[in-house]
Amino acid sequence: MNYKKRLKRLQAAIQRRKQGAMLVCQPENRRYLCGYCGGDHGISESSGALLVPARGDAHLITDFRFKLQAEMETPQTQIHIHKKGILPYLVKLLTELDIKSLIFESDYTLHSVARKMEEALGKKKISMLPTEGLIEKMRVIKDKDEIDALRESVRLNEQVFEKIYSSLLDCETEADVALALESTMRQMGAERPSFDTIVATGARGALPHAVPGANKLENGKSLTIDMGLVLNGYCSDMTRTFTVGKPDAKYMQLHRIVRKAQLAGMEALRAGVTGASVDRAARKVIDDAGYGKYFGHGLGHGVGLAVHEEPRLSPSWQKKLQVGMIVTIEPGIYIPDWGGIRLEDMFVVREDGYERLNNNDTWLNV
Amino acid sequence: MNYKKRLKRLQAAIQRRKQGAMLVCQPENRRYLCGYCGGDHGISESSGALLVPARGDAHLITDFRFKLQAEMETPQTQIHIHKKGILPYLVKLLTELDIKSLIFESDYTLHSVARKMEEALGKKKISMLPTEGLIEKMRVIKDKDEIDALRESVRLNEQVFEKIYSSLLDCETEADVALALESTMRQMGAERPSFDTIVATGARGALPHAVPGANKLENGKSLTIDMGLVLNGYCSDMTRTFTVGKPDAKYMQLHRIVRKAQLAGMEALRAGVTGASVDRAARKVIDDAGYGKYFGHGLGHGVGLAVHEEPRLSPSWQKKLQVGMIVTIEPGIYIPDWGGIRLEDMFVVREDGYERLNNNDTWLNV
Repeated sequence: MNYKKRLKRLQAAIQRRKQGAMLVCQPENRRYLCGYCGGDHGISESSGALLVPARGDAHLITDFRFKLQAEMETPQTQIHIHKKGILPYLVKLLTELDIKSLIFESDYTLHSVARKMEEALGKKKISMLPTEGLIEKMRVIKDKDEIDALRESVRLNEQVFEKIYSSLLDCETEADVALALESTMRQMGAERPSFDTIVATGARGALPHAVPGANKLENGKSLTIDMGLVLNGYCSDMTRTFTVGKPDAKYMQLHRIVRKAQLAGMEALRAGVTGASVDRAARKVIDDAGYGKYFGHGLGHGVGLAVHEEPRLSPSWQKKLQVGMIVTIEPGIYIPDWGGIRLEDMFVVREDGYERLNNNDTWLNV
Repeated sequence: MNYKKRLKRLQAAIQRRKQGAMLVCQPENRRYLCGYCGGDHGISESSGALLVPARGDAHLITDFRFKLQAEMETPQTQIHIHKKGILPYLVKLLTELDIKSLIFESDYTLHSVARKMEEALGKKKISMLPTEGLIEKMRVIKDKDEIDALRESVRLNEQVFEKIYSSLLDCETEADVALALESTMRQMGAERPSFDTIVATGARGALPHAVPGANKLENGKSLTIDMGLVLNGYCSDMTRTFTVGKPDAKYMQLHRIVRKAQLAGMEALRAGVTGASVDRAARKVIDDAGYGKYFGHGLGHGVGLAVHEEPRLSPSWQKKLQVGMIVTIEPGIYIPDWGGIRLEDMFVVREDGYERLNNNDTWLNV
């Protein structure tokens, strides 16, 4: 990945805002800019803060547990080891570097932390400027290296799915399937699942975010699997719905509607159209079939270092899609007490259409 | 769990502060107050906000994906389904309930979210009061139901450990052991690990937060396993260190010092003493043996719905322990290039001492 280019781009943005530096704590933003993969245990337990001055090298403030890892992963960055917390070290470093103004991530800084920073920096006459989505906006358009990494992540995710799908009869419950999927992800080299794997059978398929439980797979019952993994930092996200054994006529009818909606979304997808218009194209299929009220979420979302990021394919997303954006297309129909069907693939937005990142066709065209 | 009692206690705190309501978004706090288990995908993707007015029923604002789950898990709470985000719905609900002032969690609210709330609520002349740790402080003392839940969590964690310990020769590397432990946790009914399982062999035992890797288990080398799981919301946390095959004399000597330090901590543990004094009692054993500089962390921490919470057994924790608090006692010695030894159990603080929640004695008294 071209970290040097990304850093220069951010530094240009800092200079345009006439600020001295930016403090980057959001883990994917940090990784995007310098390659450091340290994981945070939630927003309150940071594994490091990246200080990017308007000019010159970036600085990573971390603690002794992450020293070796940081040195290996981001050799181009100055590594600093704090002993008494990031904030006092940050104040010292800003003073040494003679930085008088600091951009911070308003959308990844706790209200309580921002108050403490304002107090500590205020004493040194260092001003603070909140921003939202500054680096996230840079991340929305993927370059070739990133699209390659996403393609690899999708491929591995499909390999895991196919392996478990072929031995599904070994699994008794939803939880068994989820466990088999997540264990196999790790055995096959994924860093981790990109989100908690969803496995829902029968009527539980009506819960789009079902937690896999003791519900048994049974002949004729549907099974929705929504799964993704992280490979080299990049996320995949795929959903398949099918039945164990032979489906009934109603299932087949609804499955075909969902697939038709997905194809309509794909048909509408290209650079220059709004996210809302792609959502509308798919939603129309489900509306026209009389199931509009059973499709309660947006059609899709961006994927990259985070599994949910911009852009969105949803009724309210009025911005235009651009070449190099990544989106999922995942229409669904969820009927309480009956069940649900969702199908999801990932796509790169191209000038005249899209490139589908998935290859797996299990139960798409039934 | 007695949600009604917890709610009343929080409402009394809201009334004492002369506020109209409190907004609770931190997932464990939410679960503590009403039983709703919805998981957040990070702080930016909330599965619900619990509004607790100074009097009357609590209200959960969530989206349709979590509707059924919320209705099942928290029948005593008014469930509201927002369509355009939590904030606009919150403004509407506060207006309907005629609430003029709102406490919020400063330590679980993003700076950007707080700004948007201030703007939207300001227009309706609703004031905002930041707090830190208000509900966390209520959670520190556990009632009988919670202690029972913690005991079950510890028991299951031990069963998982014992199962893998007995077949350890099937594992080749640290990563194999970690995967076997985490898979078995889920097979045996845990919701998930309560933290990323630590498995460190040989010299890597000197890293208190080692990520399990390709390092092989070998005869004579030590193995540190620090593991925990979540069962019915409650966390367990246990560490064992032992050697594969026969240990050498130095290992045995250090292991006995660590165990002696743990026993000294247990001896000092009771209601009315400070966390610092329990830490001191254990630390003295390691200091006296000449290894004080190799024990760089606090002696222990609270455990409950979160795996790290108050109280702390550490040199700086000067508050007094109270009946019904939970603590780990986990002394360690970490020698660079040699390795490390840590032993950890969980305890309930009692009037005259403690109740040990663990039963497992593997390699404690060697």
